[in-house]
Amino acid sequence: MTTRLRAAAAALAVLTLLAVPSRGDEGMWLFSNPPLKMLKEKHHFEPPAGWMDHLQKSCVRFPGGSGSFVSPDGLVMTNHHVGSGSLQDLSEIDKVDYLKLGFAAKTKADEKKCPKLELVTLQGIKDVTAEVNAAVTPEMAPTDAVKARQQKTTEIEKAASDDAKNVRGDVVTLFAGGLYHLYTYKKYTDVRLVFAPEKQIAFFGGDPDNFEYPRFDLDMTFFRVYENDKPLKSEHFLTWSKDGSKDGELVFVAGHPGRTNRQNTVAELEYLRDTNYPTQLQRLNRLEVLIGSWVGRSEENRKKGESDLFGIQNSRKARVGALQGLLDPKLMAGKQAEEKRLKDFIVTIGQTSKPAPAWHADALTAFETIAAAEKKRGEMAKEFNFTEGAGGFGTQLYGYARSLMRYADESKKDAKDRLPEFGDSRLPALKRSLFSPVPIDDEYETLKLSDSLTFLATTYGADAEFVKAVLAGKSPRERAFELVSGTKVKDLAVRTKSFESKNTPDADPMVALAKLVDAQARAVRKKFEAEVEEPKRKAAGALAQARFAMDGANAYPDATFTLRLSVGTVAGYKENGKDVPAFTDIAGLYARSKDQGNAGPFELPKRWEDRKTAVDVKTPFNFVTNNDIIGGNSGSPAVNAKGEVVGLIFDGNIQSLVWDIAFDQREARSVHVDSRGMIEAMRKVYDAAWLADEIQGTAKK
Amino acid sequence: MTTRLRAAAAALAVLTLLAVPSRGDEGMWLFSNPPLKMLKEKHHFEPPAGWMDHLQKSCVRFPGGSGSFVSPDGLVMTNHHVGSGSLQDLSEIDKVDYLKLGFAAKTKADEKKCPKLELVTLQGIKDVTAEVNAAVTPEMAPTDAVKARQQKTTEIEKAASDDAKNVRGDVVTLFAGGLYHLYTYKKYTDVRLVFAPEKQIAFFGGDPDNFEYPRFDLDMTFFRVYENDKPLKSEHFLTWSKDGSKDGELVFVAGHPGRTNRQNTVAELEYLRDTNYPTQLQRLNRLEVLIGSWVGRSEENRKKGESDLFGIQNSRKARVGALQGLLDPKLMAGKQAEEKRLKDFIVTIGQTSKPAPAWHADALTAFETIAAAEKKRGEMAKEFNFTEGAGGFGTQLYGYARSLMRYADESKKDAKDRLPEFGDSRLPALKRSLFSPVPIDDEYETLKLSDSLTFLATTYGADAEFVKAVLAGKSPRERAFELVSGTKVKDLAVRTKSFESKNTPDADPMVALAKLVDAQARAVRKKFEAEVEEPKRKAAGALAQARFAMDGANAYPDATFTLRLSVGTVAGYKENGKDVPAFTDIAGLYARSKDQGNAGPFELPKRWEDRKTAVDVKTPFNFVTNNDIIGGNSGSPAVNAKGEVVGLIFDGNIQSLVWDIAFDQREARSVHVDSRGMIEAMRKVYDAAWLADEIQGTAKK
Repeated sequence: MTTRLRAAAAALAVLTLLAVPSRGDEGMWLFSNPPLKMLKEKHHFEPPAGWMDHLQKSCVRFPGGSGSFVSPDGLVMTNHHVGSGSLQDLSEIDKVDYLKLGFAAKTKADEKKCPKLELVTLQGIKDVTAEVNAAVTPEMAPTDAVKARQQKTTEIEKAASDDAKNVRGDVVTLFAGGLYHLYTYKKYTDVRLVFAPEKQIAFFGGDPDNFEYPRFDLDMTFFRVYENDKPLKSEHFLTWSKDGSKDGELVFVAGHPGRTNRQNTVAELEYLRDTNYPTQLQRLNRLEVLIGSWVGRSEENRKKGESDLFGIQNSRKARVGALQGLLDPKLMAGKQAEEKRLKDFIVTIGQTSKPAPAWHADALTAFETIAAAEKKRGEMAKEFNFTEGAGGFGTQLYGYARSLMRYADESKKDAKDRLPEFGDSRLPALKRSLFSPVPIDDEYETLKLSDSLTFLATTYGADAEFVKAVLAGKSPRERAFELVSGTKVKDLAVRTKSFESKNTPDADPMVALAKLVDAQARAVRKKFEAEVEEPKRKAAGALAQARFAMDGANAYPDATFTLRLSVGTVAGYKENGKDVPAFTDIAGLYARSKDQGNAGPFELPKRWEDRKTAVDVKTPFNFVTNNDIIGGNSGSPAVNAKGEVVGLIFDGNIQSLVWDIAFDQREARSVHVDSRGMIEAMRKVYDAAWLADEIQGTAKK
Repeated sequence: MTTRLRAAAAALAVLTLLAVPSRGDEGMWLFSNPPLKMLKEKHHFEPPAGWMDHLQKSCVRFPGGSGSFVSPDGLVMTNHHVGSGSLQDLSEIDKVDYLKLGFAAKTKADEKKCPKLELVTLQGIKDVTAEVNAAVTPEMAPTDAVKARQQKTTEIEKAASDDAKNVRGDVVTLFAGGLYHLYTYKKYTDVRLVFAPEKQIAFFGGDPDNFEYPRFDLDMTFFRVYENDKPLKSEHFLTWSKDGSKDGELVFVAGHPGRTNRQNTVAELEYLRDTNYPTQLQRLNRLEVLIGSWVGRSEENRKKGESDLFGIQNSRKARVGALQGLLDPKLMAGKQAEEKRLKDFIVTIGQTSKPAPAWHADALTAFETIAAAEKKRGEMAKEFNFTEGAGGFGTQLYGYARSLMRYADESKKDAKDRLPEFGDSRLPALKRSLFSPVPIDDEYETLKLSDSLTFLATTYGADAEFVKAVLAGKSPRERAFELVSGTKVKDLAVRTKSFESKNTPDADPMVALAKLVDAQARAVRKKFEAEVEEPKRKAAGALAQARFAMDGANAYPDATFTLRLSVGTVAGYKENGKDVPAFTDIAGLYARSKDQGNAGPFELPKRWEDRKTAVDVKTPFNFVTNNDIIGGNSGSPAVNAKGEVVGLIFDGNIQSLVWDIAFDQREARSVHVDSRGMIEAMRKVYDAAWLADEIQGTAKK
């Protein structure tokens, strides 16, 4: 449930607190504003001094996912599916299939450096709302306002960053512009693979069981952070619970929920329901069929494509679930009622408060402004997605070509005039992605490019001038072959030279294509920022203030892939009248595999068969809680009141997919790997007592 | 490559002979007009007296596919994938998975009657063009013309039919209305399953290898036709070749190509390219993901859904291939040039022939008429597909409910006023489909209905009145559950009673839904017939006559799922500079399985592993020819000049998918099971010497 974040567009949410009966432990709380009152009143828990700070600094953010330090020597725990991109990269470099075989580095010398992996930990949070807002004056034109805010945030980020110390500042937009926070991160760029089980057990049940429960997955992988070529001495790390968790026990999840749409206005939800999600689902279905079919052709293809395929299937299920929520008239009626309550409040305050608050005029028109912006978005969506979104050019080679071409242009400009992604603070990330040593597979890239060019042609119509210019008189398949086989950007040396010389390779067909599209792409992006993003930001800011006035500030913002705390309890549920218990065990794993003929996604790795008698099959394996999570939380540690690890978030059940737009805990649950199942597997199945000892603090020094 | 036909819409083709250099053995020839001149000049072959008639009467048509008699005792050969619907039906009735396990009836008493299967053989062909045309006068309004032509064809069909003798007349529209032929069929309704191998070997390589070559599939199944509870004494049947075929040998394929679009105008091809195929692909991708994912959840699901899944994947590949052809600018330029040649001819003949021919005025405006009709079709497509096409209601239960509801209405009308599918001659087929004893799976039907209701809601927009009426205040998932769990039409006894009483079940939610949609569905159908079908039919008829005048009548019509003869030779080809030999052998089967880890679609049935040493692995297994075929030809026999079986069509390679719109034989090939491989498998793998003996005529009497 993580990769959806990789393609995440700009967050465009607006705060909407739901005035419906208590929803239990709803909330993705800021570490700077934990729900202390609720914890005390409902759970009789008051975090001791330092408890929050220790948990915060033990957490790690992965690209698209979460993790945590679990030993004093920089050992990091996350999900297998969060680490699988690195496993695949290493597999291609070493020509060994680590996804299939798993990996275990018995000594530190065997640990494998991951080419593109960068982790960060959150060091501090500072409110910079006033500073950012001061950069924008009411009389500014929207495009100028966008630019002024960008410049100010870049300036704040730069002041907070220290490249030599690997410290990075990020200005985070919360409540859709209601608040701006400066998050300071410590960055780690030397991350090495320590241990991963076989994908077959990590993702047991495959796509069929994804988002389902009961479940039986060992979805874990361990990395180690290095500094100066030595294991990091991690000041903060989580200790391991001796006994795991029990039914009804209080559990905290700390991680990075990526994006929710809970505070959207009805107009925004309608846009998601009627336009955005259906369009995304079309694309996901198309790619799932395309890549699934190609992956099935050979073992080689499977290795190259299965990580992409998993990400696509995962996003597809998430969208299907959220769309069902949006199509539920009761849910939408609730959203409408809540919107009416806020509208009434805004009108009333205009009549009762003299003078009206500063935000009042904007708030009065905010719903209309947002609805109008959503309409504009719909009109621009096709062009935006195909050009600036590169949806017509579905190959990494196009991404390389465009980055090199744009960098050649942007690097000649003043820092303040550049596109934000070419700002000085972003260059290290740009270089990491451009200089990846992972080899490119021509056949796979041709397949994807041919498919996306076909989609471009059928969407615009084959006779459209744009399509003719892109296809240059060829069929999509021929054109894709020509571009992929002809481009030099697949060569790392060529990319390096181009970047360093700030010149694109001569006469390169993929660069030429990126140039052909660029003016149109930049124009639609500018228009989108001015006519959709900026008006919405302004309106959302006013609505956020209205809500503060109405309900007080005791609220949490929509997810933004920043660190959040969620509070919940271990709890089974009822489904179609049947009890679903909170815990599964290893015996259930063997039973499910047997029922499915031990085949396909239900085939156990051989070592699990061999060790069947050695394992204590009563050991809890997976469990569910009602913690409020979403994609991006994958790999989050679950800790008990003592702050000890009891689980590892890896999924939500199918009923939880509606959490994208509204929390509900009747049947919806988050799904964890049990800390006891992890240790049992390490010791009894993988002969990895060395790892279990490090984690449990029982290692001999 | 067969199921695409099951959903075939009305054929709307127009004759376009391509004036391009010789395309070798292009042609799906009518049995009433075989290419004798070409056969003699190019292949030095003159069919002896009775050769054509014998081949014709040995052929059998399956629902969506082809087959042939191969013994004097009514034994019929076809593809496994053509018979798989029946295998699945029998599996559900007997609670034995015949698709997985295969089936062999060693004695006639063991042969299993297939609940819905009806076969026909073509007895005679008669030209009725003049009769049909005489029913329509130039001054008739389009809707009247449609009705008049329908009435006349119904009348002709009725006169040619004899229920007592199981004889049925079908008026077939050829050259898009240029010709009408009366095809007289002998119908067989007692068809029993004799032998089927495991699906795993029949469809070895699964979706990944589908439409690929080299190939290794034993895609065969045998049925037996009974009359009066005794095996049919088949007067005509094909004998078996002793030696199979050789590279370069002349081969004839006789079967039922379902539908081609080769003679479409450019406007029609553009409609397919820009609208129809992309829309179909969206639907197919959606269903492939939906059903593929559900099928993977359990062994039970797999049994229920895999036949649907195969059909969907198969259609998807076919559409992708044809779409690439349509997006090839060279191919379209050829079509445009050919269209210009015809336009010029029509203009010229108007200037040179005084008086101009009768068709001339219509031909002059025909291209514009067709383009305008295609525009109308595009405007109506959404409503037509969702309502009359039932695309919003993707469950068989809706089909039952609508048929019962419409039958209750239509059966009270005069025969001539009924919708054609409720005409007297169609009632037996209607009853067969309504009275199927195959059990209905609520979960599967709910899944499909929920998905299609979701698609309906997102396409129209959730706030559209039509959507609100259909969903009745519920989410698609809730509504689907309510409809499927609540309807009584899933009960065979209820359907039987409803049909016989000509009354629908009271207060049935699915019937109520069908009623809700019906007025709109009938209205758009009527509009479609009047504004798209009839103008096109008239224009196409005029163009057909213009082409006859230009190029002579030495032509074949687009495929119409009627019996055709195709002429070709056994021939390998070059692909990306590499030679692809014509034949594969059993050794290649074992090698491909090994390369793929003998897993998933490449896993051999156990008996193939056990018998590996007994089999002669050098036996040819599959082979390719350049015979001109298309979906619907699946199961067609391939015979040599002596009329002996040498192969069994089951696929085309990926390059052949463009044959939908234009024949090309540089790389495109049709793919056969080799007659020798079939016999070797029967004798050495399946211990089915009894079957091989019957086929080879070596059985002891």
